[in-house]
Amino acid sequence: MKLNNHPSGRHFLQLPGPSPVPDRILRALSLPTIDHRGPEFGVLGLQVHAGLQRIFQTRHPVIIYPASGTGAWEGALANTLSPGDAVLMFETGYFAAMWQKMALRLGLQPEFMGLAGTDAAGLPNGWRRGVQAELIEQRLRADSGHRIKAVCVVHNETSTGVTSDIAAVRRAIDAARHPALLMVDTISGLASADYRHDEWGVDVSISGSQKGLMLPPGISFNALSPKAIAASHAARLPKAYWAWDEIVESNKGGYWPSTPNTNLLYGLAEALQMLHEEGLPHVFARHQRWAEGVRAAVHAWGLELQCVDPAVHSPVLTGVVMPAGIDADRVRRTIHERFDLSLGTGLGKLKGRMFRIGHLGDSNDLTLLAALAGCEMGLKLSGVALAGSGVQAAMDFFAAHPQHTTLQVAA
Amino acid sequence: MKLNNHPSGRHFLQLPGPSPVPDRILRALSLPTIDHRGPEFGVLGLQVHAGLQRIFQTRHPVIIYPASGTGAWEGALANTLSPGDAVLMFETGYFAAMWQKMALRLGLQPEFMGLAGTDAAGLPNGWRRGVQAELIEQRLRADSGHRIKAVCVVHNETSTGVTSDIAAVRRAIDAARHPALLMVDTISGLASADYRHDEWGVDVSISGSQKGLMLPPGISFNALSPKAIAASHAARLPKAYWAWDEIVESNKGGYWPSTPNTNLLYGLAEALQMLHEEGLPHVFARHQRWAEGVRAAVHAWGLELQCVDPAVHSPVLTGVVMPAGIDADRVRRTIHERFDLSLGTGLGKLKGRMFRIGHLGDSNDLTLLAALAGCEMGLKLSGVALAGSGVQAAMDFFAAHPQHTTLQVAA
Amino acid sequence: MKLNNHPSGRHFLQLPGPSPVPDRILRALSLPTIDHRGPEFGVLGLQVHAGLQRIFQTRHPVIIYPASGTGAWEGALANTLSPGDAVLMFETGYFAAMWQKMALRLGLQPEFMGLAGTDAAGLPNGWRRGVQAELIEQRLRADSGHRIKAVCVVHNETSTGVTSDIAAVRRAIDAARHPALLMVDTISGLASADYRHDEWGVDVSISGSQKGLMLPPGISFNALSPKAIAASHAARLPKAYWAWDEIVESNKGGYWPSTPNTNLLYGLAEALQMLHEEGLPHVFARHQRWAEGVRAAVHAWGLELQCVDPAVHSPVLTGVVMPAGIDADRVRRTIHERFDLSLGTGLGKLKGRMFRIGHLGDSNDLTLLAALAGCEMGLKLSGVALAGSGVQAAMDFFAAHPQHTTLQVAA
Amino acid sequence: MKLNNHPSGRHFLQLPGPSPVPDRILRALSLPTIDHRGPEFGVLGLQVHAGLQRIFQTRHPVIIYPASGTGAWEGALANTLSPGDAVLMFETGYFAAMWQKMALRLGLQPEFMGLAGTDAAGLPNGWRRGVQAELIEQRLRADSGHRIKAVCVVHNETSTGVTSDIAAVRRAIDAARHPALLMVDTISGLASADYRHDEWGVDVSISGSQKGLMLPPGISFNALSPKAIAASHAARLPKAYWAWDEIVESNKGGYWPSTPNTNLLYGLAEALQMLHEEGLPHVFARHQRWAEGVRAAVHAWGLELQCVDPAVHSPVLTGVVMPAGIDADRVRRTIHERFDLSLGTGLGKLKGRMFRIGHLGDSNDLTLLAALAGCEMGLKLSGVALAGSGVQAAMDFFAAHPQHTTLQVAA
Repeated sequence: MKLNNHPSGRHFLQLPGPSPVPDRILRALSLPTIDHRGPEFGVLGLQVHAGLQRIFQTRHPVIIYPASGTGAWEGALANTLSPGDAVLMFETGYFAAMWQKMALRLGLQPEFMGLAGTDAAGLPNGWRRGVQAELIEQRLRADSGHRIKAVCVVHNETSTGVTSDIAAVRRAIDAARHPALLMVDTISGLASADYRHDEWGVDVSISGSQKGLMLPPGISFNALSPKAIAASHAARLPKAYWAWDEIVESNKGGYWPSTPNTNLLYGLAEALQMLHEEGLPHVFARHQRWAEGVRAAVHAWGLELQCVDPAVHSPVLTGVVMPAGIDADRVRRTIHERFDLSLGTGLGKLKGRMFRIGHLGDSNDLTLLAALAGCEMGLKLSGVALAGSGVQAAMDFFAAHPQHTTLQVAA
Repeated sequence: MKLNNHPSGRHFLQLPGPSPVPDRILRALSLPTIDHRGPEFGVLGLQVHAGLQRIFQTRHPVIIYPASGTGAWEGALANTLSPGDAVLMFETGYFAAMWQKMALRLGLQPEFMGLAGTDAAGLPNGWRRGVQAELIEQRLRADSGHRIKAVCVVHNETSTGVTSDIAAVRRAIDAARHPALLMVDTISGLASADYRHDEWGVDVSISGSQKGLMLPPGISFNALSPKAIAASHAARLPKAYWAWDEIVESNKGGYWPSTPNTNLLYGLAEALQMLHEEGLPHVFARHQRWAEGVRAAVHAWGLELQCVDPAVHSPVLTGVVMPAGIDADRVRRTIHERFDLSLGTGLGKLKGRMFRIGHLGDSNDLTLLAALAGCEMGLKLSGVALAGSGVQAAMDFFAAHPQHTTLQVAA
Repeated sequence: MKLNNHPSGRHFLQLPGPSPVPDRILRALSLPTIDHRGPEFGVLGLQVHAGLQRIFQTRHPVIIYPASGTGAWEGALANTLSPGDAVLMFETGYFAAMWQKMALRLGLQPEFMGLAGTDAAGLPNGWRRGVQAELIEQRLRADSGHRIKAVCVVHNETSTGVTSDIAAVRRAIDAARHPALLMVDTISGLASADYRHDEWGVDVSISGSQKGLMLPPGISFNALSPKAIAASHAARLPKAYWAWDEIVESNKGGYWPSTPNTNLLYGLAEALQMLHEEGLPHVFARHQRWAEGVRAAVHAWGLELQCVDPAVHSPVLTGVVMPAGIDADRVRRTIHERFDLSLGTGLGKLKGRMFRIGHLGDSNDLTLLAALAGCEMGLKLSGVALAGSGVQAAMDFFAAHPQHTTLQVAA
Repeated sequence: MKLNNHPSGRHFLQLPGPSPVPDRILRALSLPTIDHRGPEFGVLGLQVHAGLQRIFQTRHPVIIYPASGTGAWEGALANTLSPGDAVLMFETGYFAAMWQKMALRLGLQPEFMGLAGTDAAGLPNGWRRGVQAELIEQRLRADSGHRIKAVCVVHNETSTGVTSDIAAVRRAIDAARHPALLMVDTISGLASADYRHDEWGVDVSISGSQKGLMLPPGISFNALSPKAIAASHAARLPKAYWAWDEIVESNKGGYWPSTPNTNLLYGLAEALQMLHEEGLPHVFARHQRWAEGVRAAVHAWGLELQCVDPAVHSPVLTGVVMPAGIDADRVRRTIHERFDLSLGTGLGKLKGRMFRIGHLGDSNDLTLLAALAGCEMGLKLSGVALAGSGVQAAMDFFAAHPQHTTLQVAA
């Protein structure tokens, strides 16, 4: 299979997901498929569930779907809600908007709130900042009849590079004394940014395999709360493939009611092992450090970040806004053709206005510097006037801030 | 990862799926994940769609879901039907029954017809034979108001080893001049048994990756007809993840609306290439020959086949009924522990009564003889009195009937 | 790369080496190559040396050559001997004869002793039995001037399936009070048959990667004794690539003076780990049990074993003599073409008279039964009259004699 | 196996060999080992020989040894020379010196000529320039008795980064009308730098797997001329493993007299296919371009190149001399620990004075920029005062000089 049109060297996959998959995981994916009803499988099933609970920081069940993240969105809605239910969704970017469209398709009544207007650059205000918890609180206080059944927010907006404060959303719901469920999409946040399902009182966390877990796409997750499970017993949207009840029951022995995605589970087990070896705090610190280095580069170039609130810069990806008159997708195309580097496109309202640099998965200082070098050369070749060298700035940052290394070869 | 508790040698995965995955495919699975929105991906997407059309023998769109086969069942129903719709489903075994349960869960009104009663061995008559097309014709003739919106049948019943005559079902519907859609589960039939979506007038064919396509589980398919597509525009079951319309549109360029299962698509491309190299007629003949060899063994043992109608023996798997008083699962456990061989369990009404030998995927005469040797030793160790040597019978058959080999090393 | 002309299934490599390589080892081979002068490499180098010492059962240095076993033969001779030196070599088969030819080429004076004559079947007597230690003792006693500098014998004769008693050879040398070095080729014996370099007083043991160590060919070994090392200081055959002194010195840190065969060393480390997990006594017992099952098959067929002395049947391979008028290579060709099974050819004086079944490497009861089934069908197709079913006999043996399993999945 | 002490990302192997091995080749290495005497193997053997002839640009036999490059040096000498023969060897660096030591060990009389003295930097003059053909001509003219049997030179001196003019050496020998054989070590030159065995009149070319062929170490080569083959019939150094005659004979059918290194041959077949797909002229241009970019970086840093003659800069590696007082190995260690990047050490007379950057194997612009970034940060962290940014200079060069790409995804 020809996946690369360059004669030599590895492709640089610098998207905010799928992230570059470590070789250890690629190898695990290619282990022989086994009987999903045999004793060896049960051991594997229990092992990945225990590992996922550590990653979601929860003591409650985590559902694994053979499906992409979109499927896990549907699982969250279909299990807990009934036709015509109102849900409050907060617009932070393209993926928040896609989730809202799905709610419409499923026959729910989503209320899509967010910051209005565009700024001087012509970019939507709400797509440059995180969730505004106080607006949610206001809205819930106004819903005295508790018509709103769920509040849905995105933790790490993959389309913009903004990581919202989920604990603040929880506090807002509590302050409003509102019984709505809290559902959080942490598809691109989990296992790169700190995420605490239980502590933050999330009812359903949605995530996927191809971001911080460093797997290919194909499996996705719902982490549950007891309140969400209780809601699922009364909810009336039709559900079969997504239904939690049979899965939770079958998972107790390490099995699934329908055929699980065996080889991606091998990869998941390996990924969980890698994260465990490194330790979650080190994993989070690693991504924060990378993000800081990349932002130093963007500053040095004199370009604007998509995210304008320093409190919510994403550790996973950085959105880079193009100067007026520059088509971001043309820049991306040049970079791809000349330097075999894939960057994230501007999605939805940001089409052509910005590109996204992923800094997650199987990366290190040198691969990130390589990616920044590709960006810098490509920007210049595309006629973007740069204030200075971003690569230089990132080198200075990385050299001055050594990364914690947990693993040492014996002296 | 420890997937095998034996000190040496390869595990024998002799289930009717997941089938043993060829090394070529396992290797393809472990290629680096690429950007699912990049140009290389579009080439891959178009390639797998064209290949799948050849396998389904159709000129119409084929949907690929990141989901197991159960999801593709849901896709077929959710896209074409509306709440409360009646569907006629024919009971041929466990998987027909599971599909019927799903229809209920989704708010449809399945009518589950089939042969009644049990036979001398206490086994349900309907689970030992194929779909009875004449009964379907009768039932549809009686439905003068065309309340029945779809006829749902299973092509190759994985739980029993029976391959039903789908062309006959089509003729039955036509003879009754009934407008119902014909939906066929060929999850375990496709790419092992002959299957002709267009010629047989199937409206939705459902299939999966882990059987004749020799992939791990995780992707599944809906092959469509123009009539099914037309029905999907009027159908009112809520659908989002499963919705055909956006997928078909996006597939035109080789892409997907949500994140596709990239690495399983690599495996799929490799599988399609392998099937193409061998040629579908040779693929079908290969499975027929294997099945005949395995049945020769069962006859020599003096044991009963689950399928009692010689016209519909499955080329993919063979169900072997245990004599009264023998727990088939205990036999399976002995064989697994002693000989590192996994066989299919008896499902649903057949629990403990029979086991299933898969003869598909990465197999050849010698691996099948090995599997039969494992069965024969395990049956004896379990106290089953055998009439003769099944291994000997299968050796005689295989030696006397050379397999067609398409590929030759130059002299 | 097209390595198999059959459309489906795994090739059966049933040679006495290269043995079927376990997947764990094939995967290890494909790890990225690292700097052979870096710190990670030193750790690897020390690890494989320690592991090899456990396998050779020695406390002395083991040399690893990037070379096939033939190279290690040369290493043993070139390091310890001088031009014109007499060496006593015992003819047990083709490989003993090849080693003798090498000694000639290197300018040594090999004396090639062995049993004379041929038997009723026209096969050379010496190629059906092991080393006759008492003949060696006689010869050494007659060498009062100690002109003979080394005694060279083959532990497991890969061409015949005879495993000689090395301890007896040591006793013979000692009984003759002769100072000759004892050099032993255990290329195909090591890690399948018991072998004790120190306890048996071997001075140079020669081995290779592609037999009991289950690796591809490409690295080979010299295990040394202090006496051999002392001899190497005085020996005058020219030596550079093979020279022990620099290698031993460099190995102390885990490195090599010239570039080592990095990726085969990854495989070696994995193989040593696998052997360690299972435990050497279990490894030896496993091969003995397999050999017994295969001999039961040959007896049932009514065919003759190449090895006529039951005390020295090889646990690694079994030579099967063809009846008069049957070309063993034609039988092998039929089996290869029809059943994708490779057997060992008759070498040298045995050309066309016999074939060899390897029972080592990544095998288990079922793969061996499959191999025997291939032989049985092929023998019949070739017109060989068989007395009975060897497969049946081997099934009876394996079923009646469970293999020790060290590894268990938790209940 | 733990080969990397960093928590994330790929190791950068920026040595002048082993070079980074492309994934395609690593995968080929892990194909199942086959019978080296079977028909499939013969096809492989013939294929790799034909491919090697294209790479050496020769119509004559090429010997493949299961051995590292050192072994191939020995093969060249042992096949063509007799004890006490004089050979003229030219000192260009560490590897020339090592080959000369081997000649001594084998009982030859090497005359080691070269440029005398050290320069201002205290570095040996001869190790900063290529072979001086006119000195060879002078020396051969003086050898009127033709005592010198061979002239031995290194094409690409891996220890210094100097690529000598081999055609000039041929002209020198011819001008002196001297019958000496011309033997050339192109271990690190072949398949990266232009090399023409036949056109340049080389008698024995020596090469290895782990440089331009992008394989792990473990196989090495002798390309022969008719004159070398003729010489081998008269030569009297003992030879067995290295003997060309039996190998050439056996190779005619695609086989070897002793066990070949099967899995490295899989890798070799894949490497030859990759080089063929790209085309040798593009391969050479690619390395030249990389080398130019790297030298631009060294110039920008204000550091000295090891090679002081611009006519013979190596396309494969660049030696970088450290300012007085800086221990190059300490710099390398810092870079390795902080940035997971391995550079080549200073060898022999250059120990601690310089390091070497390899620019070959599975690389591209971005990986080389990453390597340069690692060097630049490490140099600064080690207190080396730099004149400017080498990374910037290389980015400017690479951006201004697009690489030829042969392979295109269809529009």
